[in-house]
Amino acid sequence: MFFYKIIYFIGFPYIVLRLIVSIILPIASLYFIYCNFIAPKLREKPESSYKNKVVIITGASSGIGAELAKKYARLGCKVTIVARRLDQLEKVKSSFLKDYSRVNDDDILVIKGDLTLIDDCKNMVEKVIEKWSKIDICVWNAGSGSLIEFSKLQGDISIYRDNMELNYFSLVNCTHLVYKYLEQSHGSIIVISSLAGKFGTALRTSYSSSKHAVMGFFNSLRNETKNIQITIVCPGFILTEFHDNLKTLDGKQVERNKGNFMTASQCANEIILAERQGIRELIQTAKGRVGNYLQAIFPELIEFLTHKFASSSVKK
Amino acid sequence: MFFYKIIYFIGFPYIVLRLIVSIILPIASLYFIYCNFIAPKLREKPESSYKNKVVIITGASSGIGAELAKKYARLGCKVTIVARRLDQLEKVKSSFLKDYSRVNDDDILVIKGDLTLIDDCKNMVEKVIEKWSKIDICVWNAGSGSLIEFSKLQGDISIYRDNMELNYFSLVNCTHLVYKYLEQSHGSIIVISSLAGKFGTALRTSYSSSKHAVMGFFNSLRNETKNIQITIVCPGFILTEFHDNLKTLDGKQVERNKGNFMTASQCANEIILAERQGIRELIQTAKGRVGNYLQAIFPELIEFLTHKFASSSVKK
Repeated sequence: MFFYKIIYFIGFPYIVLRLIVSIILPIASLYFIYCNFIAPKLREKPESSYKNKVVIITGASSGIGAELAKKYARLGCKVTIVARRLDQLEKVKSSFLKDYSRVNDDDILVIKGDLTLIDDCKNMVEKVIEKWSKIDICVWNAGSGSLIEFSKLQGDISIYRDNMELNYFSLVNCTHLVYKYLEQSHGSIIVISSLAGKFGTALRTSYSSSKHAVMGFFNSLRNETKNIQITIVCPGFILTEFHDNLKTLDGKQVERNKGNFMTASQCANEIILAERQGIRELIQTAKGRVGNYLQAIFPELIEFLTHKFASSSVKK
Repeated sequence: MFFYKIIYFIGFPYIVLRLIVSIILPIASLYFIYCNFIAPKLREKPESSYKNKVVIITGASSGIGAELAKKYARLGCKVTIVARRLDQLEKVKSSFLKDYSRVNDDDILVIKGDLTLIDDCKNMVEKVIEKWSKIDICVWNAGSGSLIEFSKLQGDISIYRDNMELNYFSLVNCTHLVYKYLEQSHGSIIVISSLAGKFGTALRTSYSSSKHAVMGFFNSLRNETKNIQITIVCPGFILTEFHDNLKTLDGKQVERNKGNFMTASQCANEIILAERQGIRELIQTAKGRVGNYLQAIFPELIEFLTHKFASSSVKK
C-alpha cells in the first residue's frame, strides 16, 4: 500500500506536468503566436487608407506628439495639433511644411489649448468638426510627470491632483467629446500611457496612479464599444522634453541617464504601425514586455528589478 | 546541407523547449511555491501580538469594514471606526460590545467623518493619536462604486470626480497623515481595492480607473518604504450594502445576482490572515487569481471572460 502511495505521490504531479508540457503549453504557445504575430498582420490597414483621415494630436508641440503629427501628415492625413504653446506649434507646423512638399498649409490645423480646461477641449473638437466634419484618429499624448518622495510631502497633495487632472480627467473629457464622432467613423484612440501605468516604482506614486487610472479607463471602455479601436502605448524612456519638465517638490530639474533612451521618431513609427495593426497595448521596451508578462506571477522579483531599473534612470 | 538545416530548424526550438521544461519551469515553480505558500507561513505574526495594537478602519459602518472592526477588537486591538453615519457606527459598536464581553467600551473609538474632507481626515488622525498616541494598522476600506454606460454620459463627468475623490485622493491624504506614525510603529496599511483595480470591464470606466489608481499608488509606495507593510485586497463580490449604493446615471438601483457572493465575515477572516502573513496582494476569488496570472499573456481571452463574468453579475 505504502509503495502505491509513493507512486501516486510522485506520479500525480508528474502526470499534471506532462499534461501541461505536452498539451496546454503547445496550444497556449500557438494561441499566443497567433494573437501577437499573425492576427496583427491580418488586420493591418494599408498606408494608403490613411489618405484624408482626420487626426487630432494633443501635446503636439514637441516630442512624440510632434513626431506623430509629422508622420500622419506625410501619410496624407488632415492633422490637428493641440498644445498650450502656440508659437511652438507654429514652429512644428512650418518645419514640416518645409520638409514635405506634398503637405499643404490647409492640411494642418493648429489649436492652442489647455486640456485641463473643459472649454478648451470643447473648442478643439468644435474647430475640427467645423473644418473637416469628422474625426478618425485621436492621439491623447499630452501628459505630465512627477518625481516625489512621499515621506517628504508637506500637507499639500496638489501635485497629485495636477497629475490626475491632465493625465486622466482631461482624457475622460476629451474622449467623451469625440466619442460619437469616433463611433460614426469607426475610428481609433491612441493613448500615450507609460510603463508607470503597468508597474509601481519608487518616487512615482502620483504619476503612476494617474497612468494606472488611464489604463483602467481605456481597458474598461474597450469593453463598451465594438466600433472604436483603442491602442494604449507604454513608451520606454524617450528622448523628449518630458523628462526635463518633471515636477519635483523642490522645483529642481532631475538629471537623467539618457543612454538607453529611444528617439521620438522610432517611437512614433512603432505607434503608427501598432494602430494600423489594431494592437491593444504596445509596450516599447523588451524589459517592459517581459516584466509585464511576469509581474502577476512573480511580483516580488519584478518589483526588485523595476526598482533597480527605475533608480538607474535618475542621476544621484 | 538542406538536411542539416531542417534538423537545425526543428532542433533549435526543441532544445529551447526542453530547456524551459527541464530547468526554468521547475525552478520557477519552486520559487512561486516559496513566495506564495512557504514565505507567508514563515512571516505569519501570532494572534497574540495583536493585543493593544491601534487599528483605524474607514467605512466601518457596515460590510467588510464593520466585520474587520469586530474581528480586530476580538484580537484585543484598540479599534477606531470611522464613517459618515454616526448612528450606524454606534450600532456597530454596541452590537459587538454585547457579543464579546472581553471588549471594553474604552477600546472602541467612534469617529464621524467624511474622508473626502481633509479636515475630517486630520481630525480622525488627531483623535486617535490623542487617545492612544500610536497607530499600527490602517484599513482603508471606504469607497464607492458606479455603473455608467460611457456613451450615455451627458457632458458631466462629476461621477468620475466623485469616485476618484473618495477612492483615491482621500487615501493619498489619509496615508500622508498617518505615514510617520506607521513608520515609527512598523505598521501596516490594508487597502480594500477591487478586481476592477486589476481588470477593465464594461460599465466600470470610472470605478475601475479609481481602483487602478489605488493600485498604482500603493505599489509605488511599497518601493519607498521598508517599514510599512502594504496589503492590497481585491475582494470578489461580497454581500454588503456596497452593491445597493452603486451610482448610476439615472440614479436607479442595480439588481445583482448574489448567488456567488461571499459573506463579509469570510472576507474579513481572509484579510486578517493576509495582513498577518505580510501578503502584498490578496485576490479573493479563484477566477480573479487565474485571470490575474493570465491577463498579461492572453489579454484578449481574459477580456472576453471578465466581460462575460462581469455582465452576469448584473440583472438585466
